[in-house]
Amino acid sequence: MGLKFEIVARDKGTRARAGRISTPHGVVETPAFMPVGTAGTVKGMTQEHLEQLGVQMLLANTYHLYLRPGHETIRELGGLHRFMSWPHPILTDSGGFQVMSLKGLGRVTEDGVYFRSHIDGSLHFLSPEKAVEIQLALGADIIMTLDECVEYPSSHETLLRATKLTGRWARRGRQFYDEQELRQAGIGSRESGVGTEGESSSGSLAPSPESLAPSPSLFGIVQGGTDPALRRQSAEEIVGIGFEGYALGGLSVGEPKTEMYDTVEHTDGLLPEERPRYLMGVGTPEDLGECVARGVDLFDCVLPTRNARNAGVFTAEGKLVVKNARYARDEQPLDPQCECFVCRRYTRSYLRHLFMAGEMLAGILATYHNLYFYLDSLRRIRQSIQFGKLERNYPRVRAGH
Amino acid sequence: MGLKFEIVARDKGTRARAGRISTPHGVVETPAFMPVGTAGTVKGMTQEHLEQLGVQMLLANTYHLYLRPGHETIRELGGLHRFMSWPHPILTDSGGFQVMSLKGLGRVTEDGVYFRSHIDGSLHFLSPEKAVEIQLALGADIIMTLDECVEYPSSHETLLRATKLTGRWARRGRQFYDEQELRQAGIGSRESGVGTEGESSSGSLAPSPESLAPSPSLFGIVQGGTDPALRRQSAEEIVGIGFEGYALGGLSVGEPKTEMYDTVEHTDGLLPEERPRYLMGVGTPEDLGECVARGVDLFDCVLPTRNARNAGVFTAEGKLVVKNARYARDEQPLDPQCECFVCRRYTRSYLRHLFMAGEMLAGILATYHNLYFYLDSLRRIRQSIQFGKLERNYPRVRAGH
Repeated sequence: MGLKFEIVARDKGTRARAGRISTPHGVVETPAFMPVGTAGTVKGMTQEHLEQLGVQMLLANTYHLYLRPGHETIRELGGLHRFMSWPHPILTDSGGFQVMSLKGLGRVTEDGVYFRSHIDGSLHFLSPEKAVEIQLALGADIIMTLDECVEYPSSHETLLRATKLTGRWARRGRQFYDEQELRQAGIGSRESGVGTEGESSSGSLAPSPESLAPSPSLFGIVQGGTDPALRRQSAEEIVGIGFEGYALGGLSVGEPKTEMYDTVEHTDGLLPEERPRYLMGVGTPEDLGECVARGVDLFDCVLPTRNARNAGVFTAEGKLVVKNARYARDEQPLDPQCECFVCRRYTRSYLRHLFMAGEMLAGILATYHNLYFYLDSLRRIRQSIQFGKLERNYPRVRAGH
Repeated sequence: MGLKFEIVARDKGTRARAGRISTPHGVVETPAFMPVGTAGTVKGMTQEHLEQLGVQMLLANTYHLYLRPGHETIRELGGLHRFMSWPHPILTDSGGFQVMSLKGLGRVTEDGVYFRSHIDGSLHFLSPEKAVEIQLALGADIIMTLDECVEYPSSHETLLRATKLTGRWARRGRQFYDEQELRQAGIGSRESGVGTEGESSSGSLAPSPESLAPSPSLFGIVQGGTDPALRRQSAEEIVGIGFEGYALGGLSVGEPKTEMYDTVEHTDGLLPEERPRYLMGVGTPEDLGECVARGVDLFDCVLPTRNARNAGVFTAEGKLVVKNARYARDEQPLDPQCECFVCRRYTRSYLRHLFMAGEMLAGILATYHNLYFYLDSLRRIRQSIQFGKLERNYPRVRAGH
């Protein structure tokens, strides 16, 4: 249990809070946005770029890394931080979301999920225990329990079933994690000279320094769609099991914005104040502000990076598609109000040309800018919270913390 | 005529020289390698990366920029330097090489080359005059005459015909360039207040500052395959016309290495000492050293960048294909002797993973490293020349300067 969370400031008029999550690989100042580094890389960015952007924590996808290069390979290479040369905090998801969103490739049972690799069609099985085991091998700072995320709309029966399954899986994940912790503690003392030989899980390899590193923190996930009663039921169950942080899953899956905001507001009110809250897979720049005001501390989303690769650029004036012919001779930066290196040096006309020519630099520059836009937005929001001025921007959000 | 070339050191035992080319956008210390920025971008590199690498001059391809976004667009946007935000020297090729290497799409006549766009199949015509006109619109520091480059092997008749055509085209290019220079001088005085209205070639747009910038330098190209007599004939003709620099074309098109080295040695001996010599489209790291020793000052080649995108990495120990399974758990840097940021931070196992997963970062990191390898090689070679020690590495090269 390596995670410490302090709340350093609260906004007066909303539920927003500014905090600090201390992880084995460093501090994350919240609210924070985690860029998505699916396969151990944020597409188009060097790790130097991410550091220059002030990225504090990355999200990496367990599903992708399990399939390629394999969690055992990463474990043998000293864990994900060392493998990808990112010595800062990392959060891994459970793999469940990817598995279930590969339509037709996955099948959910009580035990876990059967799925086929999108790479070679091979058959795999992911259980709540396996999800934790893989993530422990990857060695992230924050890891997630396996949950079942259903689409919107779903019938009440489906939602109820998935929410209850998520609860049982959370309990199994927690139990497996705790057993591993005890075992790890045993290995720890054995390696101090007490134990016997031949029990290393990594076979003939010498135990890596990472195996003695502080443990990752396990987060539980609340499901329940947009149904307040189900969300309450799920929150009570997940909080009852007890985790170091709590995530809101099953949102941004097609529901109307107002329902998402209402669900976030409702659910955040059911989660313990003193633990970080992570809204998974959300969202637009507007969503970030709205959900911070409702008490969210952590976000991840592919929107800034995926949009960037398709010429979709976020600016203070709204979104623009820089591939559009109207930008062919536009000598303005992507966002005249932005101070990132891309906006200080390159024009829309050049970016438009790069996209039309299919050049790698198009995606690189647009990705950098979009991530800067997201991270800078959250830095400003955090500052507003510290100055107690966030409510000015979100007058419709009820406070009630 | 904006180009000044000084020789600052000569190697004792070879024909190598260290020089300085002063262009309108800065100094190029020779021998120098120009990365290829085909469409106004070196694939996968930001301009910041290129500056960090110490790139002094880029090559951009006239053919690609003419088709997309169009030379008139680039002229209106202030020229290529401003368009791509590269305030350092640029050399553009004539477009001829690309046109003729699009098999079946080009047809050579006395007037010029008819060709079809690889983008939309539209028909275009490139003459020696048009090649200069396009390059003047792009506004590079060094521009090239149109030449005909034939494959190896070609019959003596083909070589002779192409070499003679190259000579006639060089004369036409030179003449057109000189007329433009006179016209430009006229425009210059008119814009000082003497002229009449309505003659601006860029229509309703205000004259850009670039239109008054120092003119690019025109280089001539020597052809003749690997035939010493033809090379002599071509060199005499091209030098007779008179250019600010001389290029060796028609090499690295399939001929054996020894024939290429012999041809470079022979041809460089026919070119004036006091003008820069540019070996087009060459070559491997070994080629650079061998050809510097034979008197070459400038190189360009897609090898380091194109190979990088296909996982081919240059190292002090030779080339390696980092996609190979043997590197899956190799924690060494790409080149243990290299000091670039890629080799200081990332492992072969990570690069191998990135290539297997088809991630952009694979090409980015490998390209940076390969360019560093090339640029660093030439920096060391230049230093050896200044210390008079190059001949130790190239004992078989005859001096004779």
